[in-house]
Order: sequence, then C-alpha cells, then structure tokens
Amino acid sequence: MSKNVIVGQSGGPTSVINASLAGVYDEARRANLGTIYGMRNGIKGFLEGRNINMADYIKNRVDLEILKRTPSSFLASCRYKLPKADENPEVYKKIFGILAEMEIGYFFYIGGNDSMDTIMKLSKYGESIGSDIRFMGVPKTIDNDLAVTDHSPGFGSAAKYIASSIKEIILDAQVYNNGAVTIVEVMGRNTGWLSAAAALSRGDDSPGPDLIFLPEITFDVDSFLDKVEKLGKGGATPTVIVSEGLMLADGRYVNEVAAENNKVDAFGHKQLSGTASYLAQEVGRKLGVKTRAIEFGIIQRCAAHLQSLTDVTEAFAVGADAVKAAREGTTNEVVIIRRLASEPYAFTTNSIPIEKMANIEKHVPMEWINETRDGVLEPYLHYAKPLIAGEVSPYYVDGMPRHLRIMN
Amino acid sequence: MSKNVIVGQSGGPTSVINASLAGVYDEARRANLGTIYGMRNGIKGFLEGRNINMADYIKNRVDLEILKRTPSSFLASCRYKLPKADENPEVYKKIFGILAEMEIGYFFYIGGNDSMDTIMKLSKYGESIGSDIRFMGVPKTIDNDLAVTDHSPGFGSAAKYIASSIKEIILDAQVYNNGAVTIVEVMGRNTGWLSAAAALSRGDDSPGPDLIFLPEITFDVDSFLDKVEKLGKGGATPTVIVSEGLMLADGRYVNEVAAENNKVDAFGHKQLSGTASYLAQEVGRKLGVKTRAIEFGIIQRCAAHLQSLTDVTEAFAVGADAVKAAREGTTNEVVIIRRLASEPYAFTTNSIPIEKMANIEKHVPMEWINETRDGVLEPYLHYAKPLIAGEVSPYYVDGMPRHLRIMN
Repeated sequence: MSKNVIVGQSGGPTSVINASLAGVYDEARRANLGTIYGMRNGIKGFLEGRNINMADYIKNRVDLEILKRTPSSFLASCRYKLPKADENPEVYKKIFGILAEMEIGYFFYIGGNDSMDTIMKLSKYGESIGSDIRFMGVPKTIDNDLAVTDHSPGFGSAAKYIASSIKEIILDAQVYNNGAVTIVEVMGRNTGWLSAAAALSRGDDSPGPDLIFLPEITFDVDSFLDKVEKLGKGGATPTVIVSEGLMLADGRYVNEVAAENNKVDAFGHKQLSGTASYLAQEVGRKLGVKTRAIEFGIIQRCAAHLQSLTDVTEAFAVGADAVKAAREGTTNEVVIIRRLASEPYAFTTNSIPIEKMANIEKHVPMEWINETRDGVLEPYLHYAKPLIAGEVSPYYVDGMPRHLRIMN
Repeated sequence: MSKNVIVGQSGGPTSVINASLAGVYDEARRANLGTIYGMRNGIKGFLEGRNINMADYIKNRVDLEILKRTPSSFLASCRYKLPKADENPEVYKKIFGILAEMEIGYFFYIGGNDSMDTIMKLSKYGESIGSDIRFMGVPKTIDNDLAVTDHSPGFGSAAKYIASSIKEIILDAQVYNNGAVTIVEVMGRNTGWLSAAAALSRGDDSPGPDLIFLPEITFDVDSFLDKVEKLGKGGATPTVIVSEGLMLADGRYVNEVAAENNKVDAFGHKQLSGTASYLAQEVGRKLGVKTRAIEFGIIQRCAAHLQSLTDVTEAFAVGADAVKAAREGTTNEVVIIRRLASEPYAFTTNSIPIEKMANIEKHVPMEWINETRDGVLEPYLHYAKPLIAGEVSPYYVDGMPRHLRIMN
C-alpha cells in the first residue's frame, strides 16, 4: 500500500494556483498513491489538524477541470513563517508527528518564495531525523520574481488580465479629448514584471500605455510630472502605468510619502497601496488637469475568467511533475519551467534544489528597460508574449463562471 | 438616391455601445441608405466638422463583428449639453446647415439620459423649421436608470463583469481567516442596479457578498459599522458592496464627507469616487480590523472581454431597429426593450416618444430590496439573471482581445 499524500497552498493566490493543485491531485491519483489530503490554510491549518480528503471534493473529471478554472487558493492559504528548527524544535516535532500519524510519504507545497523557505526547512529537518518523506515545492506567484525558473505559474494569466484590461481602459480613457491623465497601478512589490505587461497591449489596434514605471528604476516625481505634462499637450489623454512598489531615491516607497502608517506583514514586507492615487493627486495639483487613478488590486491575481492557456497548462504540469519527481525519490526540490523555444513556444520542466530558488528575487533585466527608463523593449515582449497566449474558457453556468469551492 | 445617415455616441461608454453602432451601420447598409457618417466626439465634433465615413473603417463582416466586441465609444464621445433653442438659435442653425450640406436624412444618437435630451431638442427644432430629417435615440447606459425600457443596453455586460469579478474577489478575500473586511465600490450615481448585480454571484459555489448598500436607501455609517462588526466575528472575512452614490441623511454623499472639493460636470452632476476607501478607513479605525477597498472604476464599463450575449444581441437590435423606425418615418423617438418572458427569456423592441424617457431616472423598486436594507430579493435576481446570460468570445490575436479602432 502506497504512502499518503498531502498538499498545501501558501502565500497570495493566483488565477492558476488551483491548476497546480489539480496537477498534483491528478498525477498522485494516476500513480495510485494513497489518500490525497489537502491542508486548509497551509501549514498553519495542518498544525491545527484541519486537513481534508481531496477526493471528497473532486469526484470526477469535470470537477478537476473546474478546479483548474477556479481562482484563489482552493485549500485557503496562510502567511505563517516557520521558525528555525534550532530555535523551536517543538513545532517540527509536532509536524513530523502528525505526518507520521497520517502516514504521509509525499508533501507538496504550492507557493512563492516564502513557501519555498518552508519546504526547505521541513526537508532539512526531515533529513536530520532520517525521515523518508519527500518534500517538493511547486512554484506560483503572479509577481514572476522567482529565480532560476524561466517564469512563474500565475504570471501569464495576471499579465494577460492586466494587458487586456489596460487595452480596454486606454480605449475608454480616450473617449473625451479633455487632456485627462489616467494612472493605473499594477502589483509587484519589488519587481516590474507585471507592470511591464501593460506594454503587451500595444499593437496595430492600440497605442498601448504612454509610460511604464518599474520598481527596478528609482522613481523621481519631478521627472514623472515633466513627462506627463509633455504627453498631455493638446487635449491628449495619456495613460501611465505605475508599479505599487515604486521607490524614491531616499529609499521611501512613493506611497509611504502619502501614507502615515504602514503595517508590516509576517514576513517583514511593508503593505503597499495608493501609489496611483498619490501620483494622480500630484498631477492634478501641479499640472491642473483632470486625473483618474485605477488600482487593479486583487482582481489582477484572481481574474480566472481570463486565464492564459499557456499558464494553466504549465501550472498543471509543475504540480504533476512534482509528484513524478517525488515518486522517483526527489526531495527538497522545486519544479521549474525551462523554455525550449519562443517561436513556436515550447517548454519543459525539471526540478532543482530548493536553495537555488528560495529567498532570491528575480528582477526585470536592465537591458530590457528603455533608455528613458519609462518603458520596456522588444526582449521583454518576446519573453512575455508566449506566456499570455491561448485562452481557457470558463465553465459558465447561468452566465457566471463556475468554481470548485469548499462551502463552509 | 437615398439620403445619408449620421450616427454619434455620447456620454460614458459601455462594453456594448459599439454593438449598437454596428446595428445602426449594418441596418443602414442593408437598407441601401446613402453614406453612413460617424461624428467624432458626438455633437461637439459634428459642430467642428469632424465626421468620418464609417465604410472606411468597417470593410467586411469581420470588422463588424470586431466592432461589436470593442468597448468604449468607437466614435469617441462628448459631454456637450445643447443650449435651449430659444436661448441660442445660432447653434441650431449651424447644426441644421451642416446636416443639409451633408444631405443627412437620418440622425442617430447613442447615449443615456443626457443624449436623449439632445435628440429631443434637435427633433423639436427640426420640426419647427419643417425639416424632414428623422432623429432617433438609441439607449445605452451601464447604470440601467433609463425609464420605460425594461433595461438598458450596457447594463447586462457591466452586471456580468461585476458579478463575476466579485465572485472571484470573494474567493480571494477568504484565503486567510484573518477577519479582514473587503469593501467593493460599484458605479451607479443615483441608482443601485449595478451594485445589486453583486448578488448574482451567490449560488451553490459562492456565498455572495454579505451586504449590499444601494443609493436608493439612505446610508447610515454607524449602522453599517455595526453590521460589519457582527459579520466579522471569529475570523470571518466579510465582503461588502457599496454604491459610489451612497448618501447620508443630511443629503451629503458619503465620499463628500472625506473629499474636500467636488467638481461638477457639464450636466451638473457631482463627480464621485472614494466611498469604499472612506468606509474601509472607518472600519479600520473604529473596528481595528484589516480592510481592503476595491474600486472597479471604469473597468466595469469597458470590460468587453466579458460581454453578455443577451446584452450584445439587444444592443445591436436597438441600433438596427432605430434605423428601421426612422425609415418608416418615425422621428423624436427612442428604441426601447420590452421583455416578453423571463423563462425562457424573450424580448422585443419598439420605439416610444423620447420625452417619455428623457430626464427621468429609474430606481431599483423598494419592494426588491430586503427588509434590513442591505441586500436585494428574488425579484431583482429574476429580473437581472437573463441579462447576464450567454457569452461572446472576444476575437483573440496573440492572446489579446482584438478591437476595431481609429488610430490617430
């Protein structure tokens, strides 16, 4: 009898994090592994004994397809940071006690950088006590800031939503030739991968955004105002994309300038919001033009009604391939995506030691950013275009996309 | 030789205002009317001589299909309010001079209440000078506040986008059981049709929003805070929908309380924004919980990637039927939608004198709002469900929805 499987999701959700969950589930089932458990709210819920039997929810192939089309984390999430094993061995004893009790042989954690840190700590503790449980990381993040992997599952769908919505917003913003300035804020704490995706809207049926400011480049408010003023001449209605994580030369985030208090999350990240609002206010005040601030907020990470087929396919594959690798005896590794070709696009996956990825942040290369530091160049487009390609139609019921959900 | 046609778009755009334009164009072409002109930026651009020949842009049936799928106003828009004819006869003389010069026999204006006012004034002036030009209104508004018509083209697609996105947002907002409150602001200056659409997300795969506050009901901040506090007990993560137009008992808009200055547009409407942000701030301050404010902004009216098939079909039909009515000699009328049945849904169109619609605002009936005044009842759902039914797939090129657009 095969050992059992447990899978969890952690960190911020994406449009396709459940496609990875579906990949883990499907492959584990095909391989006739034991019971496939899901931990509610990640390792935090696991410690509280809140685990479910996935088969109670995925009853057939349609359920599995709907799970792939369901945004957010089906199992719910946490931002629980595991202490170091030498500082708090008790929590590790407890985790491995529960794992033994549940007869777990395979542990999968779908998440970003912080989740990879969790997998790494568990693997190392497991090794130190001679556990034969295989711990595998499955990457996800809309931010696309994970190292080594060509890109991260979740990025393509978020980029597709951002580029499509910005294309629509540019059309809308230009219906009056009143010189109004539209500023759109896109997620990305320290990296500009998502903000740059706005450039994908440019084509022979759209001028695309006029300016894109990435957090890779120190932001200067005066230079920004100069550029906006020049663009807005003669009733033009420029569209400007700003990353939530824009930082000034003095090290302050742009939105910190306006915000009085910034809370810090469990991983020490500052909580950001309001960059677009602040800059729109400055434009209105200094240039005397009408402005509009748009903040996509969480919609950009959960708009599964506009998934990228490439992204869904890859998210499923990294989940399934984590199971394959674990069955072959791999542990303390994470599955990455390798690009074989861009035109036509082809990818493969393989797994790498998790320490090569954990706690490293991948930035947009400086040579992909234009000389005036307010836009991206062809290499970025070449990189990102295949990742938004293809569509996955939601399963519509009564005009609404259907989701697989634990109702409680 | 038939007289020529001119068509314009006015007011705020919608996801399907171009489907109505396609309807006008297609029907005028089928009827072998003369040249079909489009006025850029509505009557304002017309007065400046900025008209195009639509056939230069719609070269085949694919272009027509893409136009139906293109959000915002293809011809661009204006918020120009025609003066009364007895106050400023010069502007009317100028308009009718240009119309005569262009040999226009049919004048179509696609818009909301303010645009109907324009059509009415032009028709009446035309009548007074014995003009045989037929003036027809084609309704559009995401707000659904137009009188007489069962509903307005543009509403169904906005409602579908709002309900779908809120369904996704609720899933996302519930991944951490941290007691956070999510407040989503929906458009609707004085009516709650769109805010109420959030209730369409409720089903056996979604709990739907916890509270919906419509502008039809006087808003009370203390009662709101009480309700949110009760809902948030035990780590629950309530989702609250607020209309941009919520008003306090003292007659102030909620967002006026926070905002220092409110500009007034050409029609005397106050410009609103920030209701959700303000209320989220209040919840955070008074209840001490984490909050998230989401403002859909213009995305909700231009998200053509999620059009309702019912809406597109009807928007096209009211455009085409305006041409049919005009050809039969009708003038100073607007095409409305009549519902023949809800299950299965069936509609027809007919035209009515424009003064029955102009400058009247249709509200959500009080008997469709629940007793506690924070949600809607079955009759609203019965009314709205057919209007979001069906999908129109965008024409995707390289992963992006294709649009028909005047590039200049």
